[in-house]
Amino acid sequence: MTTDPAPGADLQQLVANARAGRVRAIARLISLVENNSPRLREAMSLMAPHTGHAHVVGLTGSPGVGKSTTVAALIAAFRRRGVRIGVLAVDPSSPFTGGAVLGDRVRMQNHSLDTGVYIRSMASRGHLGGLSTAAPQALRVFDTARFDVVLVETVGVGQSEVEIASTADTTLVLLAPGMGDGIQVAKAGILEIGDVFVINKADRDGVQNLQREIRGMIALDPQRGPQEWKPPIVRTVASAGEGIAELADQIEAHRAAQRLSGAWDRRRLARFRAEIEALALAEVRRRFLTGDRAVAADLAARVRDGRTDPFSAADLLLRNL
Amino acid sequence: MTTDPAPGADLQQLVANARAGRVRAIARLISLVENNSPRLREAMSLMAPHTGHAHVVGLTGSPGVGKSTTVAALIAAFRRRGVRIGVLAVDPSSPFTGGAVLGDRVRMQNHSLDTGVYIRSMASRGHLGGLSTAAPQALRVFDTARFDVVLVETVGVGQSEVEIASTADTTLVLLAPGMGDGIQVAKAGILEIGDVFVINKADRDGVQNLQREIRGMIALDPQRGPQEWKPPIVRTVASAGEGIAELADQIEAHRAAQRLSGAWDRRRLARFRAEIEALALAEVRRRFLTGDRAVAADLAARVRDGRTDPFSAADLLLRNL
Repeated sequence: MTTDPAPGADLQQLVANARAGRVRAIARLISLVENNSPRLREAMSLMAPHTGHAHVVGLTGSPGVGKSTTVAALIAAFRRRGVRIGVLAVDPSSPFTGGAVLGDRVRMQNHSLDTGVYIRSMASRGHLGGLSTAAPQALRVFDTARFDVVLVETVGVGQSEVEIASTADTTLVLLAPGMGDGIQVAKAGILEIGDVFVINKADRDGVQNLQREIRGMIALDPQRGPQEWKPPIVRTVASAGEGIAELADQIEAHRAAQRLSGAWDRRRLARFRAEIEALALAEVRRRFLTGDRAVAADLAARVRDGRTDPFSAADLLLRNL
Repeated sequence: MTTDPAPGADLQQLVANARAGRVRAIARLISLVENNSPRLREAMSLMAPHTGHAHVVGLTGSPGVGKSTTVAALIAAFRRRGVRIGVLAVDPSSPFTGGAVLGDRVRMQNHSLDTGVYIRSMASRGHLGGLSTAAPQALRVFDTARFDVVLVETVGVGQSEVEIASTADTTLVLLAPGMGDGIQVAKAGILEIGDVFVINKADRDGVQNLQREIRGMIALDPQRGPQEWKPPIVRTVASAGEGIAELADQIEAHRAAQRLSGAWDRRRLARFRAEIEALALAEVRRRFLTGDRAVAADLAARVRDGRTDPFSAADLLLRNL
């Protein structure tokens, strides 16, 4: 859980090298995050003054909609515009996934000689705070390394993945015709978080219907006021590169609109707040694991014997923290 | 989130009625849990002295192995023995499930006139603590209502479901031939938690192989000492009732062995401890949501401006709790 991928390395030098865009340093810093290294705290502290530049783009969508293909196409489009782009492929620590992310990584290797691109998949098994602490920490490394855009790709659509995608500066919701996606979007609470909707595989039947469904749901969303950003719907065929330039345009348009309206700053503050709270919760959990076992054991015994209820026991445990 | 399913009801009377086995009272108490009622704490406190009797049996297994059919067959088997049995079907709050549990509930309705059986499905959306606090609270209601056995059926096999199943007094791991289950068991960390392995659909091809695989993995498990309970492997065809009496025997044998060795008590203490810690964490989370917004906002702004790192901010937040 706390193996150190850069033992003895000078963290100051590592951060300086990351700032200079050196891939090896970036990789080692993200490994510190992934392994929840004891020196993570020092590393974060050294990076803190050098962040605040990168625009974080979250991608979410059901398996099979073409997330990896879209990521690959977006990398190419942004690189043509001279934009430095990072990709964080996040594996929500389920014992059943794991293979997919590595596969995607390999598929995207054709950018491996370009220092303006860095692609990294990350698990979060060892993390007490899970992805809610690991993802923002990894993003901070990308930010320190001065990437202009960081794409966060999550595997599958679960609650935690939605949370990560929704704390991005711009959230892309990917759909494809013929997958019952309209209903899926409505169910999963994805509609509320989408800043740009992407209908991929738009050469298939059912595009019109899907677009109408999404448009209807956006119009009905009570949380979107008339002054708010109206999420565009972009049609793509990512495998052929179609619509990708327009998608990149819409990402940049959303970025500009967010900066202008102040929403960019509000979202960042919300994101940092969520990160701080997740770290605080992880610390509480750590104290439970390492804390006074006698106190916890005594409380459990009192609950077992019906001498107290679990709520009162929890209060006592917190007071003892 | 906090709608009260029993407004104005006298909680003392409700608990007394639940102790007398009245279904309506049991249902209302579990609804208090499900809705995270403001009166839940008082209800738990009233129930605390009346618990400690029920034997909790957790069921886990991949979709399609026949969990619901097995539950239905076990209900019938235990009822024939005069055992009062409760079933808690737990829905891990994913937006994608929900249908299955209700379906199971309907399928098991043929016991609805028998007061020795109570079947209840429960979601945990409103819960800050999620299933880790809601499930033990619901079990406490069953326990108060003097059920001898409570089956906890979880939907799907994810980490949280494994956790719930593993805190049971007896954990059943259900498998079926021809589903690649051997590998699945090894992957999901289910092997370590199984007290009784059930090969359902044992009239199908591949039973021998599956049994050999499970036996091999049990033998290799370093956590099982020679004095420990050796998990038996029971073959069933739940749809035809075959092997179910033997399964019920093994559950009772495990119960007796656990009581004798003291493991029963150790497990309960671990379960109560986990519940207390989960409640304490939920309380911390609640304080973040309702606490001083100015402090959290200021910390987030300091992180944004690179004036501090998130770890230091988290320390300050905890100190402010």
